[in-house]
Amino acid sequence: MDGNDKVGTYQFVAEPFHVDFAGRLTMGVLGNHLLNCAGFHAAERGFGIAELNENHYTWVLSRLAVELEDMPRAYQKFSVQTWVENVYRLFTDRNFAILDEKGRPLGYARSVWAMISMETRRPADLLTLHGGAITGYVCDKECPIDRPGRIKVGGGSPEAEYQTKYSDIDINGHVNSIKYIEHILDLFPLDMFREKTVRRFEMAYVAESYYGDRLTFFRERKGENEYDMEVKKNGSEVAVRSKVIFS
Amino acid sequence: MDGNDKVGTYQFVAEPFHVDFAGRLTMGVLGNHLLNCAGFHAAERGFGIAELNENHYTWVLSRLAVELEDMPRAYQKFSVQTWVENVYRLFTDRNFAILDEKGRPLGYARSVWAMISMETRRPADLLTLHGGAITGYVCDKECPIDRPGRIKVGGGSPEAEYQTKYSDIDINGHVNSIKYIEHILDLFPLDMFREKTVRRFEMAYVAESYYGDRLTFFRERKGENEYDMEVKKNGSEVAVRSKVIFS
Repeated sequence: MDGNDKVGTYQFVAEPFHVDFAGRLTMGVLGNHLLNCAGFHAAERGFGIAELNENHYTWVLSRLAVELEDMPRAYQKFSVQTWVENVYRLFTDRNFAILDEKGRPLGYARSVWAMISMETRRPADLLTLHGGAITGYVCDKECPIDRPGRIKVGGGSPEAEYQTKYSDIDINGHVNSIKYIEHILDLFPLDMFREKTVRRFEMAYVAESYYGDRLTFFRERKGENEYDMEVKKNGSEVAVRSKVIFS
Repeated sequence: MDGNDKVGTYQFVAEPFHVDFAGRLTMGVLGNHLLNCAGFHAAERGFGIAELNENHYTWVLSRLAVELEDMPRAYQKFSVQTWVENVYRLFTDRNFAILDEKGRPLGYARSVWAMISMETRRPADLLTLHGGAITGYVCDKECPIDRPGRIKVGGGSPEAEYQTKYSDIDINGHVNSIKYIEHILDLFPLDMFREKTVRRFEMAYVAESYYGDRLTFFRERKGENEYDMEVKKNGSEVAVRSKVIFS
């Protein structure tokens, strides 16, 4: 594979039931597309879930940060590019560009992944796996947004409570990474999305939650347009943290 | 256009975040694909939302019935065929076949649509619109499942209550047709989907609900594996009815 092959490009169209009331693609659907692109890109290079499953390994998403100037609107075509920025022993950084129909960037995203053994749940050493072949895909394409940062919620009383249901649970038996995005943005009233748009959105996946878990949602305002959120499961352990910056 | 053009065929793959804990495509995602196929098929023949919007008309889904022997599994390719079975003055019947990778039917679906004026909210006469051109697409392809039937819930106390949120609302300002499917199936415990599969699923869209509406969910068991559901908004008016038959 030559250098150009390090960046994968995938085409999409903003489907009518995948946009919000304002006609913009939802963050949950965009997140789903990004994770699918990560999967396609990895699979095409021999690091996909299907190949890993044979060896009883799987990718685990640790962090996701998305920063956008605009979102695709209903029926608009757009594309997602993805590439590997860094490979460390226990983590790899995968970046994304979201481009409009003419190839102009609408925004970028950064993600951090670990690989774990499905038997021991322990992390795999990415630098030795497949003889370190993954490092051959590292690419220095620019991703002009900040890395995922620190998210901190002081405490207080929960703003919402939710018991996880059938439709929240993914094939691994965990609450679906995308469903958290929906539940977190649902903490904000519709008018917030009428007056503002989400400029930056971050997720930190800390611990898995399961069917029937009682999730409690804590939110702290950090600035005029900035909110940090924390989701605990069953009253104690943190499941995910999130930051939203509106503009 | 010749006779073959009456049936539209669209290719899909069951994405990893679009399957449930058992690895089967969710009914909500399948419903979304069916509605998209209806949109593609209509648009390709000059009856799509974009064309209608210019004339201030839009399609409104009234009924949906899906009957399946199996669901696509994670990463499996499948296709959806759709065609128009009947056109009446105020309604049109559109059918679907869901086919596996080899073209074998996994199941079928039936839907009933009306077209309304966005200005007056009154139904349009489908037989005179565009000089009755839509009738030229009627096709007698077989759809071997029952038509949508009667759904009746006697009363009793609600099984669940839910206030609609940002992520429920579609571009028309209504609760998204697909979100109702998720909320209704979430009335059943996960174990139900472990032991059984949904053989037939019906939705009757009766009245629109909006952001902040309080939905109450009523459920009545009609047989060993059959349940009728009714969703009311704000304590009185029926928004949707649904039937689920497990096997």
